[in-house]
Amino acid sequence: MTVGDVTTEGPQTVPGRSAGAAVEKYLHVRRLTDLLASRLSAEDQVPQSMTAASPAAWHRAHTTWFFEEFVLGRLPGYSSPEPVFRFLFNSYYEAVGPRQPRPQRGLITRPSVAEIGDFRARVDDAVVAALEAGRVDDRGLELLELGRHHEQQHQELMLMDAKHLFSHNPTDPVYVHRSADPVAAAPGETDWLVVVEGVAQVGALDPADGFSYDNERPRHRVWIPDGQVATRQVTVADWKEFMADGGYARPELWLSDGWAAVQDEGWDAPGYWRREDGVGVSASAGTAGAPAADGEWTTFTLSGRRPVVDAEPVCHVSFYEADAYARWAGARLPTEFEWEVATAGWEIRDELDPDRCHPQPATDRTIGGVWEWTASAYLPYPGFVTEEGAAGEYNGKFMSDQHVLRGGSALTPAGHTRPTYRNFFPASSRWAATGLRLAR
Amino acid sequence: MTVGDVTTEGPQTVPGRSAGAAVEKYLHVRRLTDLLASRLSAEDQVPQSMTAASPAAWHRAHTTWFFEEFVLGRLPGYSSPEPVFRFLFNSYYEAVGPRQPRPQRGLITRPSVAEIGDFRARVDDAVVAALEAGRVDDRGLELLELGRHHEQQHQELMLMDAKHLFSHNPTDPVYVHRSADPVAAAPGETDWLVVVEGVAQVGALDPADGFSYDNERPRHRVWIPDGQVATRQVTVADWKEFMADGGYARPELWLSDGWAAVQDEGWDAPGYWRREDGVGVSASAGTAGAPAADGEWTTFTLSGRRPVVDAEPVCHVSFYEADAYARWAGARLPTEFEWEVATAGWEIRDELDPDRCHPQPATDRTIGGVWEWTASAYLPYPGFVTEEGAAGEYNGKFMSDQHVLRGGSALTPAGHTRPTYRNFFPASSRWAATGLRLAR
Amino acid sequence: MTVGDVTTEGPQTVPGRSAGAAVEKYLHVRRLTDLLASRLSAEDQVPQSMTAASPAAWHRAHTTWFFEEFVLGRLPGYSSPEPVFRFLFNSYYEAVGPRQPRPQRGLITRPSVAEIGDFRARVDDAVVAALEAGRVDDRGLELLELGRHHEQQHQELMLMDAKHLFSHNPTDPVYVHRSADPVAAAPGETDWLVVVEGVAQVGALDPADGFSYDNERPRHRVWIPDGQVATRQVTVADWKEFMADGGYARPELWLSDGWAAVQDEGWDAPGYWRREDGVGVSASAGTAGAPAADGEWTTFTLSGRRPVVDAEPVCHVSFYEADAYARWAGARLPTEFEWEVATAGWEIRDELDPDRCHPQPATDRTIGGVWEWTASAYLPYPGFVTEEGAAGEYNGKFMSDQHVLRGGSALTPAGHTRPTYRNFFPASSRWAATGLRLAR
Amino acid sequence: MTVGDVTTEGPQTVPGRSAGAAVEKYLHVRRLTDLLASRLSAEDQVPQSMTAASPAAWHRAHTTWFFEEFVLGRLPGYSSPEPVFRFLFNSYYEAVGPRQPRPQRGLITRPSVAEIGDFRARVDDAVVAALEAGRVDDRGLELLELGRHHEQQHQELMLMDAKHLFSHNPTDPVYVHRSADPVAAAPGETDWLVVVEGVAQVGALDPADGFSYDNERPRHRVWIPDGQVATRQVTVADWKEFMADGGYARPELWLSDGWAAVQDEGWDAPGYWRREDGVGVSASAGTAGAPAADGEWTTFTLSGRRPVVDAEPVCHVSFYEADAYARWAGARLPTEFEWEVATAGWEIRDELDPDRCHPQPATDRTIGGVWEWTASAYLPYPGFVTEEGAAGEYNGKFMSDQHVLRGGSALTPAGHTRPTYRNFFPASSRWAATGLRLAR
Repeated sequence: MTVGDVTTEGPQTVPGRSAGAAVEKYLHVRRLTDLLASRLSAEDQVPQSMTAASPAAWHRAHTTWFFEEFVLGRLPGYSSPEPVFRFLFNSYYEAVGPRQPRPQRGLITRPSVAEIGDFRARVDDAVVAALEAGRVDDRGLELLELGRHHEQQHQELMLMDAKHLFSHNPTDPVYVHRSADPVAAAPGETDWLVVVEGVAQVGALDPADGFSYDNERPRHRVWIPDGQVATRQVTVADWKEFMADGGYARPELWLSDGWAAVQDEGWDAPGYWRREDGVGVSASAGTAGAPAADGEWTTFTLSGRRPVVDAEPVCHVSFYEADAYARWAGARLPTEFEWEVATAGWEIRDELDPDRCHPQPATDRTIGGVWEWTASAYLPYPGFVTEEGAAGEYNGKFMSDQHVLRGGSALTPAGHTRPTYRNFFPASSRWAATGLRLAR
Repeated sequence: MTVGDVTTEGPQTVPGRSAGAAVEKYLHVRRLTDLLASRLSAEDQVPQSMTAASPAAWHRAHTTWFFEEFVLGRLPGYSSPEPVFRFLFNSYYEAVGPRQPRPQRGLITRPSVAEIGDFRARVDDAVVAALEAGRVDDRGLELLELGRHHEQQHQELMLMDAKHLFSHNPTDPVYVHRSADPVAAAPGETDWLVVVEGVAQVGALDPADGFSYDNERPRHRVWIPDGQVATRQVTVADWKEFMADGGYARPELWLSDGWAAVQDEGWDAPGYWRREDGVGVSASAGTAGAPAADGEWTTFTLSGRRPVVDAEPVCHVSFYEADAYARWAGARLPTEFEWEVATAGWEIRDELDPDRCHPQPATDRTIGGVWEWTASAYLPYPGFVTEEGAAGEYNGKFMSDQHVLRGGSALTPAGHTRPTYRNFFPASSRWAATGLRLAR
Repeated sequence: MTVGDVTTEGPQTVPGRSAGAAVEKYLHVRRLTDLLASRLSAEDQVPQSMTAASPAAWHRAHTTWFFEEFVLGRLPGYSSPEPVFRFLFNSYYEAVGPRQPRPQRGLITRPSVAEIGDFRARVDDAVVAALEAGRVDDRGLELLELGRHHEQQHQELMLMDAKHLFSHNPTDPVYVHRSADPVAAAPGETDWLVVVEGVAQVGALDPADGFSYDNERPRHRVWIPDGQVATRQVTVADWKEFMADGGYARPELWLSDGWAAVQDEGWDAPGYWRREDGVGVSASAGTAGAPAADGEWTTFTLSGRRPVVDAEPVCHVSFYEADAYARWAGARLPTEFEWEVATAGWEIRDELDPDRCHPQPATDRTIGGVWEWTASAYLPYPGFVTEEGAAGEYNGKFMSDQHVLRGGSALTPAGHTRPTYRNFFPASSRWAATGLRLAR
Repeated sequence: MTVGDVTTEGPQTVPGRSAGAAVEKYLHVRRLTDLLASRLSAEDQVPQSMTAASPAAWHRAHTTWFFEEFVLGRLPGYSSPEPVFRFLFNSYYEAVGPRQPRPQRGLITRPSVAEIGDFRARVDDAVVAALEAGRVDDRGLELLELGRHHEQQHQELMLMDAKHLFSHNPTDPVYVHRSADPVAAAPGETDWLVVVEGVAQVGALDPADGFSYDNERPRHRVWIPDGQVATRQVTVADWKEFMADGGYARPELWLSDGWAAVQDEGWDAPGYWRREDGVGVSASAGTAGAPAADGEWTTFTLSGRRPVVDAEPVCHVSFYEADAYARWAGARLPTEFEWEVATAGWEIRDELDPDRCHPQPATDRTIGGVWEWTASAYLPYPGFVTEEGAAGEYNGKFMSDQHVLRGGSALTPAGHTRPTYRNFFPASSRWAATGLRLAR
């Protein structure tokens, strides 16, 4: 973080260079949101396809509210010209006050999508002006940085949620056109990286050394047992073997709650997969990929419905499926700490390319493409301290009954993936871009 | 049916005058839908605020699908250029094929609202061309007339559903601006019309004598017992007395399922009513009505939130509430046949005024303003015959566990109200414009 | 009611003889409950197999509470030695006070089954003593009679509920042993009784002319249209034809809510039917009937699981199924008034035989064996007046969203069936002994 | 484990002394179940008060089935004379076959409670005979020991479930009579045991060194950070302070899912607590404790309803409540490994006394009385291996979305508590005897 540097007398006093950098970083994130949203019509931005998802318009407004509430709200004398937005676009911050019930986010058609654009522009102008005037104090700058990362998270959520929404439309809407991928051979067996037992340091350093969320800190020691971690993620080709071996029909492979989910939800393949029977209601005219043959598996992508690709990492599997696959393979999922130690120094490949929005084929000793379920429950690190004020509600309040995912996905904005990052979802979630890597 | 006039030899052969009239009547209905929808933004037209409601865009497309499926579909060689619309915009016609699941109507963002406008224009052009070319046969003309009435029903539904949607928005959106009503004195006690026992004819005559739905036929005899029917609907002033007398807290006044609904839903006033406490999240800036004082009851209208008006008929009450009110008043609800006999010849007041969309004060010996719950369950008339083909699914399949309402409301398009009309809703419904009239 | 009055010459003036008759009638009903319960173990009497059902112990206690509350409670100075029973064994009488939540009736293990027997004996002693001492006033005698009929209703409920409970036990418990029926030929086509249109009197006379429930009164006029009513109930053989013709798979035959029930509940045959596949978990060792062959349909009876019998009336079908069957047969269900007019004078066959508890084969121009769904919704008769006090809650509060059944069943105690009797259940109920008769 | 000792030639060959000891240990456990069940009537043993609970009769039969399935089933030529019991009394072992649906365990009234007693006796006779004849092989003896510990778990469950059942009965049933406790002063502030960071060994040794469940193994190294663990459990007096300080009304203290539970369930005190208002429906005549004054908190115990006792450890709190309390207290919950290290060598006090069945006042440096929620999710230890066969389903399949509890409770049979024991429940559970201890 450049602002608050010891060589300056105080963040507010030298707006010049550092303000310019802060402005640039701020606007960089804001513009990507606008770019991603620009492919969604006003209609596309309204619905909430399930309670866990949110409308795109809401994502755009909520991320803006975050800056207004936590950055502009700190400025002396600031008050919002649209106070009802505090009610509409607060997500879950109890300390800020009551809010639109979560399951009713899809009923907000006013302000319009254009008015939400105005809201974004108004807040951007005010933030930039405040930065340039040197009126944002140290804590404000910290919250500004938190807000940037927060908005990056919502960029991924906005894409996930749009995909979920479109998947319910029999016309198979296309978010982004792209040509068919070249045929890639399915990779062979994975290699294994040996992890030697011992005490390791995990977690993020102090924020002064680079941004991290509260849930990545403090850096602390853990004991890592002997083990091996696969150098490559599990692929579509791998998953087809699991399916062919009755993976979805053998209770002995599943956790108790997982087996219940298989039966209740009728799972027989990853999320968005469908076995074509030649009598579908639509022909996905907008899809550039090769058409699927009868009996072939397709998957719904942000470029329409396409045949599944063997070389890609499997995606849209729940923790339960990842765990069952690992058991079937005679292996297990790595813990989040094994993962962090094993992948140290690996390349981060396959972050968000707005013209693709879909994983590349899996490669060795890389992370990215799909989030990776770990064996670890989402819990606070030893010495975890909740931040004061509403921002303290950021991550800590979800530390129960969620599972840690590590890495990043093809929907994760560039620069957002880091080795200590802890993503988390409930065990039955399938709409995030989630895959896995084995350990043993 | 006026088209196919006896002086012509056959509907198809003299397109001239009768086609012109048919075209005019068709376009009259279609234009009103467009007018009503024009006050809803693209965003407003997408959400489905509950399973029983539908998006405005869907109403616009579904009514168009009806004409394409049942009128254009009869033309030799006709096939839809957008076959997926058969899936998307079929409501419940099993005979036509599978369809978008009802709870997922709010997830259809493509086709866009503009494309649905194009769909409407394309079908209108084709219908008009077919009429003018004399290509619509007798059955087609019958179905055309059915389609017009069907679209009128959906005009009311579209307004009801928009109101329901807007009621979840803390900004209290305004569908139509209107000035505050002049203060009207609450009317005094109602008069009672005496009904003398005897055999009466009820129901609609043969369609050749004027349009009616299948569920209004055949005309048949019933025995009407001695009784009295109130000449005026129950008003807001009346309802306040019921509330003041503990009406919502006295189980002895309620049917068993009604009392369960009171407790489960927390009912303590009609739908959309709210007692103001001065700390609401929003101030309904767009509302032209007088502001509400603390402790005063307001109601949500299509012109925003407004104080309730004593002289108006009470609206948005369920059958259970209507029944409990009647018991409290020492009276009962009329049966649908008593109602039909008693109101014969009364003026139909207060049909849809697109610049008002809200009931006028109640007046004597009139119907309209609010639908009136009757004591009658929705059942087929003796000799009821299901029509052949998909159109036979129109009304008959809902004849279980619904209650008959008679009359019409301030959201019912002009010309749609008639003495034999049978509307129907489940006993717990409150989002339609439903009130009541007493009998004893 | 005349009984019990000292000043008249009627039965009420000489407590000796008339009291003896009242005592005898009272004890007759009470003893049958004891007999029916004697075949249920203490364990059998505790569970509540679904919210709509009740434990046998609860039926025994609730019917006793009714006499204590409404008959003994009227005696000067009477107070219950077990006041908590008012809470435990009140069913739904709001006027009496709060009560054990209905879904938790199966959690009452104390008082024990033996203590409930003691409760019954104590109340019986007190009622008999009061009768013999001439201390029961006119209203008390009316309520005593109401209580007897109330207890008869609960006798049927207790058997229905026991059957429902046992049906969840893979050991196929036997309530009563009986030998296999002789083979009866399936009857041929039914005859039809012609009903000529006109005004008819329906409903029960004044109670002074014989007991009736409030919901059967007042006797009133209705217009009956021309029609025909089948002289015989629909049989198992008939139903098999419906099934063979795809009756459960053709949406056009079903009401909208009925088709939803078929899909949600997976109905493909009447309640308790099962197609044998030879790999059942149990062999119903206690069942005296002939064993079922593979692929054959069996049904669960109070004598264990048995092959279905063609000649019997079909039983355990919902209103929705009855309605769909009628549509398939090109007929309809009779209204309750057609039924009452058409069956006048027919023999009541097949009331409860405690050693059989199962319908006999259907015969012509009889009623009984199975309750018959009618086309009529359960609504109050014109002039219906709710009785004063808690007893007024008896029937009237359920007059919404239920359907009228007429006749009686093989579980209905002798003497309880009468031409004006109105039974009622929700349209989806299948655990009562419900069948149908056609009209057209 | 004495049987299977290396110095003997084989377990089956020297039935004499070691068989006698095995028989004695087996019968010791079995007799305690019989004793505990002897206070429950046949009626008490039937209901299932919620899906998570089971009927007492089912516990008695299921523990017996375990021995028949896994011990007797290994004997050459053994087959059960009651094969349907495999279906009825299998809990969740997919490998054994289909089973009675869990929510329908409370519908099994046949076999009777007496017949379940016969089943127990028959299996006991067969097990004893097999042991005495030296026919139980090494694996059988292991499974016999597993079955003993399994039955001890079910002893605690049977008491928990009986308490839950009785709590729904307004007569406040008494499971065991006991006199009022002497008044104990609430203890003052707790002391804190300092834990110094470093690598520690946790988990159970090889089974040959004493029984442990699969989920306690393998013993492995973990890194323990610096910290402090309270020497005493949180008491009722402590909890009252939390309540008085608005603990149940301050969202900032709660995890997100916890706050949702507070609102959905209406929690404002620990499970079974009730604030007396002097108008309860019953007077708990059978309760020996002092009567509660108006406004005072009482709790439901296995000796009836009693005033809460300040000196006792708080009990029947969920993980969410424990976590919120810790946050309120400026502390946290210990991890399961901190707990294991900190409590090493502490006295196990307050195991099951069948004449008390209720915690004793909390004391320093002891465990027992109440299970203690830890911060740890229930996950497999590094190197965890599922046992082969159906017994491998014992613990591993539940390792998701449950939280670890350590210690033991006043309902845990003597000898069942051990330092490495891992109990587990979902975060919202309150019917187990669950409390907490702080760390910081």
